[in-house]
Amino acid sequence: MAQNIYDTPEFFAGYSSLPRSRNGLAAMPEWPALKALLPPLDKLQVLDLGCGFGWFARFAASEGASVLGIEISSNMLAKAASFPTEGITYKQADLETVELSGEFDLIVSVLALHYLASLDRLVKQAFAVLKSGGKFVVEVEHPIYTAPSHGDFIPFGDKSVWPLEGYAREGPRTRSWFVDGVVKQHRTLETYITMFLDAGFVLERIEEWKPTKEGLEAGSCDEIEFNRPMFLLFKFGKP
Amino acid sequence: MAQNIYDTPEFFAGYSSLPRSRNGLAAMPEWPALKALLPPLDKLQVLDLGCGFGWFARFAASEGASVLGIEISSNMLAKAASFPTEGITYKQADLETVELSGEFDLIVSVLALHYLASLDRLVKQAFAVLKSGGKFVVEVEHPIYTAPSHGDFIPFGDKSVWPLEGYAREGPRTRSWFVDGVVKQHRTLETYITMFLDAGFVLERIEEWKPTKEGLEAGSCDEIEFNRPMFLLFKFGKP
Repeated sequence: MAQNIYDTPEFFAGYSSLPRSRNGLAAMPEWPALKALLPPLDKLQVLDLGCGFGWFARFAASEGASVLGIEISSNMLAKAASFPTEGITYKQADLETVELSGEFDLIVSVLALHYLASLDRLVKQAFAVLKSGGKFVVEVEHPIYTAPSHGDFIPFGDKSVWPLEGYAREGPRTRSWFVDGVVKQHRTLETYITMFLDAGFVLERIEEWKPTKEGLEAGSCDEIEFNRPMFLLFKFGKP
Repeated sequence: MAQNIYDTPEFFAGYSSLPRSRNGLAAMPEWPALKALLPPLDKLQVLDLGCGFGWFARFAASEGASVLGIEISSNMLAKAASFPTEGITYKQADLETVELSGEFDLIVSVLALHYLASLDRLVKQAFAVLKSGGKFVVEVEHPIYTAPSHGDFIPFGDKSVWPLEGYAREGPRTRSWFVDGVVKQHRTLETYITMFLDAGFVLERIEEWKPTKEGLEAGSCDEIEFNRPMFLLFKFGKP
């Protein structure tokens, strides 16, 4: 089973205090980049893998889509259900064992897949339930961000450098994030892309997120983020 | 014009002393990975962009291909011409301004494109001279390797870490490598892939090179290379 740290009360309290938890998509500095990868959503059947608080699901529903949101965390789902749910169905399931069914025009997964120790199976299932011509838009933590055992910049000369190591050694990384013992799965960029290509997807777009002028001015991101990408975004198509 | 550091005598002397310069493909730890991306070469028309000493050109010719090797450095070409050249034509040209013509089944570029300040034009030209169904196999220094101003591992705790910074700031990087002032162009992985996709290519395979068991045993690579990828390999196809 995938780690479900979000149902740990102390973690959930901390996570819930994040700007992106309180204010949603507008507080995600990478949201404009993610949005730019999306097709027009009106009338689409959308599957949201790891939907969390349902921010994206509500956005898609507000644009006219029908959304199925899948999420492992009871805490998250309870919060999602406290908002308007018109056009949205929520389902509790573990993405490592879920059996997907139905037909979708668009699959989206925002900052969820790097929690899964087993990902290959889900990618194949996603391909199977995506219509021909459909898109799978993915955001994960960038492998440069997940690789090192030390998850902060360190000073070196007059710079703040990212102490990269272990990039080619895939597997779990345990960090302190609100609580100790938060486990994320490090995969190389090669592994992510290869997994999707082998499932039959075509890579249409890749983005290594970096701060924008607007984000810097609004204070939602910081100059230091130019030093290494935190987020990795993909748009895959099914031929 | 692209920097032509290879025609600087002191640099060329140093470069010529490298195992891969003296012993060719067999001394390149990434050669097995690169070779695995190639189609069968017999009877193919092959274009080698930045062919250097002609190691790959000679390999391809020995497999039955007809090869056009393009190289800016007079020193490199003189050395290449001192080996058997059957099946190979060498041409001196700057990859930033060259006008490609003809029709090719395979284009290969090994550790050359990260010297070019302007790459977009060449990628478009390569697409134009590649036959439909043809492949473009590329090896460049990995963006993680080219990004930082400091080009060595540093100690941090009990680890050797790669002091990554400036990843999202593209442009020239000046390093000392045999001589001072060797300029390479840092591009993000996003930029490389996007440039090829926008030209019409399809990404078929990506590899972030890491040491192999065989390479470690033979001493051609080192455990420390697991910490960050030095080489990035792509296989693109023309639909």
